Amino acid sequence: MSAPRPSLAVRNSVMRSSTLRDLVSVTTAGPVTAAGRAAAAPAGAVLSLAGGLPPAEAFPATALGLAADRILSSAAGSALQYSPTEGDGRLLELIAADLTGRLGIPSPAGRTLVTAGAQQSLDLIGKVLLDPGDVAVVEYPAYVGALRAFAAYQPDIVGVPVDDAGLDTDRLAELLAGGLRPKLCYVVPNFSNPSGATMSAARRVRLGELAARYGFVVVEDDPYGQLRFAGVAVGPIAAMSDEAIYLGSFSKVVAPGLRVGYAVVPDWLMRPLVVAKQASDLNSSTLAQRLVAELLTDPDWFAGHVAGLVDLYRRRAEALLTALGRVLPDRLAVRAPDGGMFAWASILVPDFDAMALSRAAMARGVAIVPGDEFTVDGGFPTQVRLSFSILDPAQLVHAVDRLAAAFDDLSTGSA
Amino acid sequence: MSAPRPSLAVRNSVMRSSTLRDLVSVTTAGPVTAAGRAAAAPAGAVLSLAGGLPPAEAFPATALGLAADRILSSAAGSALQYSPTEGDGRLLELIAADLTGRLGIPSPAGRTLVTAGAQQSLDLIGKVLLDPGDVAVVEYPAYVGALRAFAAYQPDIVGVPVDDAGLDTDRLAELLAGGLRPKLCYVVPNFSNPSGATMSAARRVRLGELAARYGFVVVEDDPYGQLRFAGVAVGPIAAMSDEAIYLGSFSKVVAPGLRVGYAVVPDWLMRPLVVAKQASDLNSSTLAQRLVAELLTDPDWFAGHVAGLVDLYRRRAEALLTALGRVLPDRLAVRAPDGGMFAWASILVPDFDAMALSRAAMARGVAIVPGDEFTVDGGFPTQVRLSFSILDPAQLVHAVDRLAAAFDDLSTGSA
Repeated sequence: MSAPRPSLAVRNSVMRSSTLRDLVSVTTAGPVTAAGRAAAAPAGAVLSLAGGLPPAEAFPATALGLAADRILSSAAGSALQYSPTEGDGRLLELIAADLTGRLGIPSPAGRTLVTAGAQQSLDLIGKVLLDPGDVAVVEYPAYVGALRAFAAYQPDIVGVPVDDAGLDTDRLAELLAGGLRPKLCYVVPNFSNPSGATMSAARRVRLGELAARYGFVVVEDDPYGQLRFAGVAVGPIAAMSDEAIYLGSFSKVVAPGLRVGYAVVPDWLMRPLVVAKQASDLNSSTLAQRLVAELLTDPDWFAGHVAGLVDLYRRRAEALLTALGRVLPDRLAVRAPDGGMFAWASILVPDFDAMALSRAAMARGVAIVPGDEFTVDGGFPTQVRLSFSILDPAQLVHAVDRLAAAFDDLSTGSA
Repeated sequence: MSAPRPSLAVRNSVMRSSTLRDLVSVTTAGPVTAAGRAAAAPAGAVLSLAGGLPPAEAFPATALGLAADRILSSAAGSALQYSPTEGDGRLLELIAADLTGRLGIPSPAGRTLVTAGAQQSLDLIGKVLLDPGDVAVVEYPAYVGALRAFAAYQPDIVGVPVDDAGLDTDRLAELLAGGLRPKLCYVVPNFSNPSGATMSAARRVRLGELAARYGFVVVEDDPYGQLRFAGVAVGPIAAMSDEAIYLGSFSKVVAPGLRVGYAVVPDWLMRPLVVAKQASDLNSSTLAQRLVAELLTDPDWFAGHVAGLVDLYRRRAEALLTALGRVLPDRLAVRAPDGGMFAWASILVPDFDAMALSRAAMARGVAIVPGDEFTVDGGFPTQVRLSFSILDPAQLVHAVDRLAAAFDDLSTGSA
């Protein structure tokens, strides 16, 4: 292949790939080096606290196999065909019933769009709402996939700090009072990625009020909401505000390999998003949508399946947090999440930074993600994200032991 | 929901939806009005010459059912998981073997990206290559999905006429000599949608030369190439030129409801496209990719399956063209395609336009697409696209009879 000509330079909005993605690849590839930034791993599989993947045992493989049998033996003609850009009609009905019943989101029918996971919702929202120079407010730290989806449309991305009660709406209000005029504010209100924080009810109400007052859209991304294993559920912003987009996903409660998620949007955004989706991929996989619909058709089965997932993640979170409290109490301050897959931790040892720790950890055979991955400006030099989703409790204990060894290596200068 | 605030106006690049899409919905919804622009259909199902959908009998439902069984009983853990953004490794190997063996495309390994159908390839290419005001050359008439995918990135779209030998490269050369500097030139070289035309070998070579000389990328979209039922195969531009992107799709040879296609790209475009894909949807459905890979694993079975499809479309094309020649020889001039799903026809009756004909046809219970759908400027007022993919031969004969009745209605002023 010839070198690119100057006239063919790619648009400057195309960003670097994700170190996170490269780290995630560690979880399936075994003991390989992560993104060239980590030292070689020791013999034996890397234990990953890095990626936010559901473990294979979380997938309802048997139920999906039976569903595939039913669909491909009786309704293959339509399940293998193009389908409406908005989504499969039956799936949309089942989603609407779930959203009104479980979350109190008003009248989702006619304003819900099925997408290829919530990630595609983020891309389409960026495509429809963001022009270069527009402001997008995000959590600080934020889900890296949202940063990348929005960045393609060249907005100014403004991070607002997250504490134990989620995005700091007082700080956002100050910025708005000072003249900031965002097009959207993106939050993961339940067990956020990467912070693990859950936004309080008061802040959710406040965010809706600020959106109404200053004319921006709240993008409420809720892939983990059903995976609550502690505390009390808080209603979604989309049940309190006309200005909210609610993003759901079946990646964490069914399987990410299907790529089925959805967006519930204000009426005026529906048609532009459908047109953008049509231009992007015509429709999401019809077969994958039908598979999800088959599972949702039996709400009791589905509730039992989700209860099993909650139990699985509860046990893993407890194993990780207990081990960290036992082995690293003076070296790592950890936020205990109420659900989801992530714990956010701050390094307490002076002069230790997250990048060095992640390298030392990889050398000891455990993968973690340094905090700077979750911003556009490389903040959080002494924070790390620890995911407890992939490893079982015994492996989590072992991973924490390795992490402690990495701390020791850094202390003795042997890393 | 409240009305949109001025600050929240959607980007002006978001286009109108497709009348074509609305017409396509007729094929599954039965006797409904198409997009409010057609008269009410008579009792009984509308016969569709509109959408370019494979018929249900073209889907390898049994083989896919068996493949789903195998995958979900033995490899569910990985088939339901996130997968590499570039695509499933085994599928990429099988695609590479097919492309080098069947088409002579050199070394596709490492520069092939699996996408959610070729439509997503078009979107990602636009996202990576097109800035507002850049020039994108397309066929005139062009695949409407490409127009919509590119339009989101606000290029100037320049149509170059298509004749029986495909895009007129002499005309393109004149435009280039006159100063036109496109970023890309988009063609469907085999049995194009909507023109049915196949680009000659000489023009393919010429287009590659022009791309090298003037510094643009050829986007060669080939969803129908394997569906040749007449004439002799012509090699792809991507086998002759370093400047070509080759787009393949399993929508027409397996099933569109899986949403699996791919792009083979110049080396320098691979990483930007992977990053753009990662931001857009992380990866295409892993399960859908595995299903396609299962079918490709047995090349003999797959070749037999494709041979069956070729036979199916040959018989349908013959039925349509024979009926048109018998019933409407003086009223419609039809280009006989060498494959694919479409015939392009010009109305020979003075003062008859395609829009009026499509309305009259819908009133008679047959859907066709007026030519103005396939441009950005509403050209082709007296052309229509006739698809022979959905209806069986007997239905095609019946549809042509209805079309003749629509001509009669227009002649007598009763339409």
